[in-house]
Amino acid sequence: MSKSGSGLEHFYSVIPAGGIGSRLWPLSRADAPKFLHDLTGSGSSLLRATWDRLAPISGPDRVMVVTGRAHRAAVEAQLPELIDSNVVLESEPKDSTAAIGLAAAILRLREPDVIIGSFAADHVIADVRSFRRAVVQAVAAANAGYIATIGITPTEPAIGFGYIQCGGPLDIAGAPDALVVESFVEKPDLATAEKYVVDDKHLWNGGMFVARADVLLAQIGESDPALLAGLEELAEAWDDPARRGPVVDRVWPGLTKIAIDYTVAEPAAKAGRLVVVPGHFDWDDVGDFASIAKLHSGGRKSDLAILGENARVLADSSSGIVISQTSRIISLIGVRDIVVVDTEDALLVTTSQNAQRVKGVVDALKLSGRSDVL
Amino acid sequence: MSKSGSGLEHFYSVIPAGGIGSRLWPLSRADAPKFLHDLTGSGSSLLRATWDRLAPISGPDRVMVVTGRAHRAAVEAQLPELIDSNVVLESEPKDSTAAIGLAAAILRLREPDVIIGSFAADHVIADVRSFRRAVVQAVAAANAGYIATIGITPTEPAIGFGYIQCGGPLDIAGAPDALVVESFVEKPDLATAEKYVVDDKHLWNGGMFVARADVLLAQIGESDPALLAGLEELAEAWDDPARRGPVVDRVWPGLTKIAIDYTVAEPAAKAGRLVVVPGHFDWDDVGDFASIAKLHSGGRKSDLAILGENARVLADSSSGIVISQTSRIISLIGVRDIVVVDTEDALLVTTSQNAQRVKGVVDALKLSGRSDVL
Repeated sequence: MSKSGSGLEHFYSVIPAGGIGSRLWPLSRADAPKFLHDLTGSGSSLLRATWDRLAPISGPDRVMVVTGRAHRAAVEAQLPELIDSNVVLESEPKDSTAAIGLAAAILRLREPDVIIGSFAADHVIADVRSFRRAVVQAVAAANAGYIATIGITPTEPAIGFGYIQCGGPLDIAGAPDALVVESFVEKPDLATAEKYVVDDKHLWNGGMFVARADVLLAQIGESDPALLAGLEELAEAWDDPARRGPVVDRVWPGLTKIAIDYTVAEPAAKAGRLVVVPGHFDWDDVGDFASIAKLHSGGRKSDLAILGENARVLADSSSGIVISQTSRIISLIGVRDIVVVDTEDALLVTTSQNAQRVKGVVDALKLSGRSDVL
Repeated sequence: MSKSGSGLEHFYSVIPAGGIGSRLWPLSRADAPKFLHDLTGSGSSLLRATWDRLAPISGPDRVMVVTGRAHRAAVEAQLPELIDSNVVLESEPKDSTAAIGLAAAILRLREPDVIIGSFAADHVIADVRSFRRAVVQAVAAANAGYIATIGITPTEPAIGFGYIQCGGPLDIAGAPDALVVESFVEKPDLATAEKYVVDDKHLWNGGMFVARADVLLAQIGESDPALLAGLEELAEAWDDPARRGPVVDRVWPGLTKIAIDYTVAEPAAKAGRLVVVPGHFDWDDVGDFASIAKLHSGGRKSDLAILGENARVLADSSSGIVISQTSRIISLIGVRDIVVVDTEDALLVTTSQNAQRVKGVVDALKLSGRSDVL
C-alpha cells in the first residue's frame, strides 16, 4: 500500500496505558493494572497485543506509550522494541486529555505535521486486518483536517458501552466510509440499546481518536486553554533532560483532570469537526469479569473458562470463569455463571451478573484501610 | 447424684476418633481430619468438645480415645488430660466395630464389669445437661444387660441421617424413658422423613452405643467370631509393651472392616436386646458444609457465617459460609447459599445444595493422583 497522500506517512500511534481497572480486582492492582495482564489467554498482555496491532501500521519507532512512573519497568519489559524517547511517564494520573494531549504536544514539536492515533492499552480486538482498514481511513480523514474516531458496529444490545450517533457520509479522499458524528450517547438502557443495534445509526464508542496533533491541541485549547498551556509548557521542556524535571514538578500538579470525551470528542462533534469510521471487527473493552468470561466462552453460558498459567481447576457442573494466579487446586461444584479470581493475597467470588459491582469492593477496601491488596 | 446401682461407677467413655470427613474437604484432610477442627466457632475442636461432654460423666481418667497413629500428637495436644494407657492407636483404619470392640476388649480385661459408652469424636451437641441425662439412663439400661443407644428427637425432616424406629417402653430401673428398638431405618426420602418427624416413633440415629463390654463383645462374636477372636488376642497383648507390637503386626491386617451398625446395632435390635433412650438435645453430625452453615446461621438463609481465626471477609449481598484457613482477603459479591473454603493449597467453591457432592471431588483428586491435597 502506498502511503503517499493518505497521511499514513505522518501517522504516529499513541497508547495511553493508564487506569487500574478496578472492576477487575483482585487481578488488576495499582501495581499490576489491567493492561499488563493476558486476559484473552493468547499469551500476550493487552498492552502487548495493542502494540502488535499498531506497530505494523505506524512502524515500531512511531509508537508512543504514556503510562505511570510505577509501570515503566513492566511496560518496557513487555515492549522491548519501544524506544526510550517514546516512553512518556506521568508523575500522577491526570486522565485522558492530559495523557493524549501531552503526547500530541511532544510529537508536534518533533514533527509539525504528525497525525496521532490514540488507542487504549487495554482493549481487545482480534481482527487486525479490519482494524487496520479502519485506522487507514481514519488517518486519511485526519489528514483532511478532521478529528476522526473509529466506531464499532454493534453485534448485540450492549448496555456497558457508550454509543456514537452517526450522520450522513462525507466525501473524504481515502476515507470512503467516514460519516459525520451527530452526537455521543451515554451507556443506554436495554430497550434503547436494542433499538441502536438495528437502526444502523449507532456505533460503539471505542475511545479511539485519530487527528493531526495541531488540530487535536487546538480543540483542547478551545475547551480548556489553561490545560493546553500546561501541556505545551511540558512539551517544550520534555526533550531537554535538564529542564524536564523542574517543569514537570511545577506544571503537572495543576493540570486539569478530565477525560478527552469532554474536551475533544463532544465539542468537536457539536462543531461538526468529528467523523467516524465504522469498524467491522469484534471489540471489547474487557471492562469486567463478565466480559472476560464472554470472550472465552464464545458466548456459551454452559462453559467454564479457565485463565492462569498454573491453574489447577477441578469443576463439576459449573460454568463461568476461573482466573488463577496461584497453583492451588480450585474445585467448583454446581456453581453457575460464577466468577472466581484467586490470587496470592486476595480471593474474589461473584457471578457474571454482579461483575460490575466489583469496583464497590475496591472502594470498601480503600475505606477500611486495606490498600495493601489494592 | 448417687452413682450406686445406676452402673455409672462402671462407666467408661470411648471416643473413636477416625474418619477423614471427605465431604468437608479441603478443610478436612488425611492429616487434619474433621474431629481436630473447630467447626462451631466455639474455640474448641469437635474432639475437645466431645471430651468436655464426657469427662465430667465418666471422670477424665476414664475416657479412652481410639485413633490413627498419624493423629496421636494432635489428639494428645488437644487432650492433655488423656492418660497414656487410654490412647489406643490403630495401625490402619478398620471401621467402627474394630475400633470400639478393641476398646471394649482392652477395658474388660482391666475391669470386668466395665460399661462402655461410645461417642463419635466429630458430632456437635450443645445441650450438655440433656446429653448427660440421656447417657445416665443409657448406662442404667446397660447395667441391666441391654445394649443401649441414644436417639435424638428429630426437629426437622432430615434426609441426611439414619433413623431408629422405637417400640414400647421397658421397665428398666434408672432408665424410665428407654424404649425397645424395633429397627434401624436408612436415610429416608423427604416424604418419609416428614412422616417420621410427627409420628413420635422415630429418632435420629446418632451412633451412640452404651453397653457392658462383655455384652457388646458377645454381640460382636455372634456376628463375626473371627473378628472377636482377633480383638481379644489384641487386647490380651495390649497392656504388655513387649508383646503388643508383634501381635498388632500379625493380627491387625486381618481384622474385618465393618461398621458397628451391622455387627451390633441391627442384630441386637432383631434379637430384642437393644433399647433406645430419647435425647432431647440439638445434635448434628456436621456431615457437610451445609450442615456447618446451618449450625452457624441458626437456620437463617440470609446469613453469612464466617469461620477462621484470621478470616478477612468482605461480603456484599451474599449468604452461606466462608471457612478461611488463610489470611487472604476474601470478597463475595451477590452469591447466595455459597460455600467457600479457603486453605493454603486448595480452594472449594460450591453451594449448600451441592455440599453432599464434595466427596466426589476427593474421589476425583485421588483418581488423578493429586493426593498431595487430600
